Order: sequence, then structure tokens, then C-alpha cells
Amino acid sequence: MGTRDAAAALGRTGPDAMGTAPFAAWSERHPAVSLAGYAAAAAEAELLINATAGHASVDCLAAAGARNLAGKVLIDAATPNDFTTPVAHPMPSPWGTPAPILNPAITDSLAEQIQRAFPATKVVKAVNTLAAHLMTDPTALAGGDHTVFLSGDDAGAKAQVRDLLTAYGWQGVIDLGELTTARGTEMIQPLYLALTRALGHEHFDFKIVR
Amino acid sequence: MGTRDAAAALGRTGPDAMGTAPFAAWSERHPAVSLAGYAAAAAEAELLINATAGHASVDCLAAAGARNLAGKVLIDAATPNDFTTPVAHPMPSPWGTPAPILNPAITDSLAEQIQRAFPATKVVKAVNTLAAHLMTDPTALAGGDHTVFLSGDDAGAKAQVRDLLTAYGWQGVIDLGELTTARGTEMIQPLYLALTRALGHEHFDFKIVR
Repeated sequence: MGTRDAAAALGRTGPDAMGTAPFAAWSERHPAVSLAGYAAAAAEAELLINATAGHASVDCLAAAGARNLAGKVLIDAATPNDFTTPVAHPMPSPWGTPAPILNPAITDSLAEQIQRAFPATKVVKAVNTLAAHLMTDPTALAGGDHTVFLSGDDAGAKAQVRDLLTAYGWQGVIDLGELTTARGTEMIQPLYLALTRALGHEHFDFKIVR
Repeated sequence: MGTRDAAAALGRTGPDAMGTAPFAAWSERHPAVSLAGYAAAAAEAELLINATAGHASVDCLAAAGARNLAGKVLIDAATPNDFTTPVAHPMPSPWGTPAPILNPAITDSLAEQIQRAFPATKVVKAVNTLAAHLMTDPTALAGGDHTVFLSGDDAGAKAQVRDLLTAYGWQGVIDLGELTTARGTEMIQPLYLALTRALGHEHFDFKIVR
């Protein structure tokens, strides 16, 4: 697993700003997963997952190094939340503060920005529409009877991601098409936030009934 | 039912630009529904439904007259599709042409624009996330086991809309909260278009599995 500064991440002893326990506590329970700098982690990876904060993703991937990403499949699970741009009439968030706005959106997406920045990498947008705890454990909700979406320009890369998701227990995988369709799943962000606030939890997911 | 020019609408004999049969054919099969100008239709209405093209909705409602809308509940079912702004890298649409972009979005919504333009009207965003044929006939898909969302600032208005939807057979009504949450359901547009293209039809809907 890659991070900016592995020693600093492992050295923290208190919870982070969102109240999450320090990484060292998680690390102790998962001794098979080692933490490294972005570049070292990416160099060894067969398949990459971008789970960084969306507003910082391109910079984090640049720190990993284009050479270490080239030729590989990258699952982009991030949402380009912008917490800094003020909005005259903000939508409320589940946390009491104004909801972050999406940037980019509509005419572009984070997935497309990453693809343009790293053209030798095969970007597949996926698992960005649901809570982290369900991404690799879909059967924890309704026996797995809900939907995950794929967007990407490389058919082989999408097939590889589909196989991985199927191995995690996903049954409802829908291939939306080209990477531009990632705008669709990224733009579900305000509905996701509104639902989290209305329901009072994140143990939910979208299912396409057809 | 209100339109700009009832005589002209009823006088058309050929299909429209989307290939839809002329209104007169529908009108013949539904003699209980009369067509009138916007203002006459709104003046008589107990409850209003905005089903105009989103980019023209505020103008159409202005033509109906603020006085004729005042104090009433208005269900806003429209999507603010902008077919005119060119996009460097457009997302494909189900119709072969580039998909329309959303305008407004992110920091505003059509529902909020309507509410600001007609402050004495009680705007409730609803049924804007699914195909027209399912809005009043939800049980035609999966026995009605899918979701419709409400957004609005007036609790009484939302309760009235919920009762109407329940009468149509809707079971999965979720109240998202304030009208600002209409940004969430309006911004589902690109995902809806991508799904229509990927599935090849519009006989689908979102269900929130929880």
C-alpha cells in the first residue's frame, strides 16, 4: 500500500480529522500488507487502485511515477471532492458542514484527467459509487444484490477488473462504456451524500432494477 | 394540460423531431384530458407538474403566470439538459449525438431556480430520475420494487406528493431533505444516459438497497 510518507503514517498515535483510528492499529491487524512510499508501492504492483482523495489524485499518481504506472490497469475509486470552493447556497452534508462540490464534473471527470496525465496506464473507473466497506465485501448488503459500474476505454482492462469484482462476490457488474461515462458515476456524489444524511448511515448501495 | 399554443399543438399531423406521434393522436385516446395554454391550465390546477424541457422551464412557468402558481404544490420532473454548449470531449448519448450537459448543476439546480423565481409556489423535485412510462406506473417494472426521491423545503407539500406517488403504486419513496438535494437527483442525468445506452432501453430504475 502506498502513501506519501510511510514512516510518518505508521508513527501517528492519535485519530485523524475524521476520527479514524491511526493507521498503525490497522497495520497491526493486517501484517501481510506493508506500507511504502507511492513510487515503491506502484513499482511492485501488478494492478493499481487509486483510493487517494480525489482533489489530490493526479499529484499522488505523479509522485508514484508515470514509469511505475505504465502498461498497468488502474482502478480509479476516487471522487473529486472540492472542500475549498465556497458556494452561496450549499447543500448540507452528512457531517453538518456544507457538502463538498465536484470538480471536475459535467464536461470532464477525474478518471479522464488521470487518463490524460498517464496515457500509458489503463484507467477503469469502478467502485466509486458506494461505501468503502462494501467494495470488496458486496455480500454484506442484501446478499450482494446491488450494482457496481465500470467505465474505461480498454476492453481488456475492464475484463480484468470485472474478474476481480466477481471474485469479491459482485454479481451486478454493468459496463457503461467509454471512460467519459465515468462522469455519470462521479456525479452521483451529491445524491450519495444526501442519501447518507437522509438514511443516517452508509450501509446502502444503488441497484439498477431492469 | 398546458402548452404554449394549444391550437397549434392539436393541429400538427406529423411526428415531432424525436419521432413521437402528433399530440392529436394521444388526445383522441384521452378525451378526459383537455389541452390549454399554460396560464389557463395553471389557473385551474390544484397541483402542478412541470414536465417542460428543463432549459425552458422557468420561461414556461413565467408564461403560466406567478399568480396562477402561487400557494400551490409544483412537482418538478424536469432535467436541465443543455444541448447547445459545445464540449471538447463529449460523452456519447443513447441517440448517437453528444450527450447534453447539465446546466445548472453542482452549486445550483433547476428546482432551486424555479423556487427562487416563484417563491410563493411549493416546489418538490420528484420522478426526475426515471423514464416517463414508469412515473405513474411503477409496478410495470419489478412489481414496483425500486426507488423514487423527494426534495423540497415544505414538509406539507412533500407529504402531498408522497401520497400521490403512493396512490400510483410507489413503495420506495425516499425523502432526501431540503430542495438543495435536488442537485443530487438532477445530477444522475449522465449516469441515466450512459445506462440507457449500455442497456439499450429505458425500462430500468434505481433502487436504493439498504
